[in-house]
Amino acid sequence: AQMALERDYEAQRDYDTRLRVLLETTDEAVIFVSAESGRILDLNRPAAKMLGGDVTELSGAPFAQEFEGRRRGEFLESLAAAAASDAHTTVSLTARRSERKLSMEARVFRAAGERMLLCRVEASDGQQDVPDVLG
Amino acid sequence: AQMALERDYEAQRDYDTRLRVLLETTDEAVIFVSAESGRILDLNRPAAKMLGGDVTELSGAPFAQEFEGRRRGEFLESLAAAAASDAHTTVSLTARRSERKLSMEARVFRAAGERMLLCRVEASDGQQDVPDVLG
Repeated sequence: AQMALERDYEAQRDYDTRLRVLLETTDEAVIFVSAESGRILDLNRPAAKMLGGDVTELSGAPFAQEFEGRRRGEFLESLAAAAASDAHTTVSLTARRSERKLSMEARVFRAAGERMLLCRVEASDGQQDVPDVLG
Repeated sequence: AQMALERDYEAQRDYDTRLRVLLETTDEAVIFVSAESGRILDLNRPAAKMLGGDVTELSGAPFAQEFEGRRRGEFLESLAAAAASDAHTTVSLTARRSERKLSMEARVFRAAGERMLLCRVEASDGQQDVPDVLG
């Protein structure tokens, strides 16, 4: 049993690396969020750029606080509701740091016994580059 | 040590699920290929559609055989060379099943002691939908 576990363990480590490479390669802005803690578990550079921070500072940050006028419970619930609906429902948001208008699509799933959200973010202001934020 | 291994194992299972959800969610066509065996390890639906098959039949298939006039060794080498170059070098290909002209960008990485390629495929024929293949 120990040997089988070690073999499985080796196989699973591989998924960790694949996930990392896929996250770094995709041009889409994606964010993994814990539904329990409300914190950002993982995100890629395009996502960090849209939120107006960098990957390191945003990892582990409370997700709701990254958006204007959003309280934690209500915010995660509205994302989960959008995720649960059949249609590709998007939620409109303004990022606090970058002041950009974003639209977000979420998907709820369960991993290692925890509920998570995978959020895809797109700019809804038509901007593609780093925004020229007016303080 | 056994307990620590089991905890790690649980944590890693989580990455497997995240990888799966991200692959299913992204609209980009992505394919994981083993550099050793030359076989497709994993791919998502947009990628399968571009190649002209479905995910199940293409999983495990020899990658080079999916393209016209490509022999295995030469093919994987040209992808690896493109991946190693600084610029975002793309390789132009014609998919055998779908007869579509594709451009491919690859990245080489190592997971669980094995060399792998992550390939991103885009249509270079301007088609976005399911192609009307002329037999």
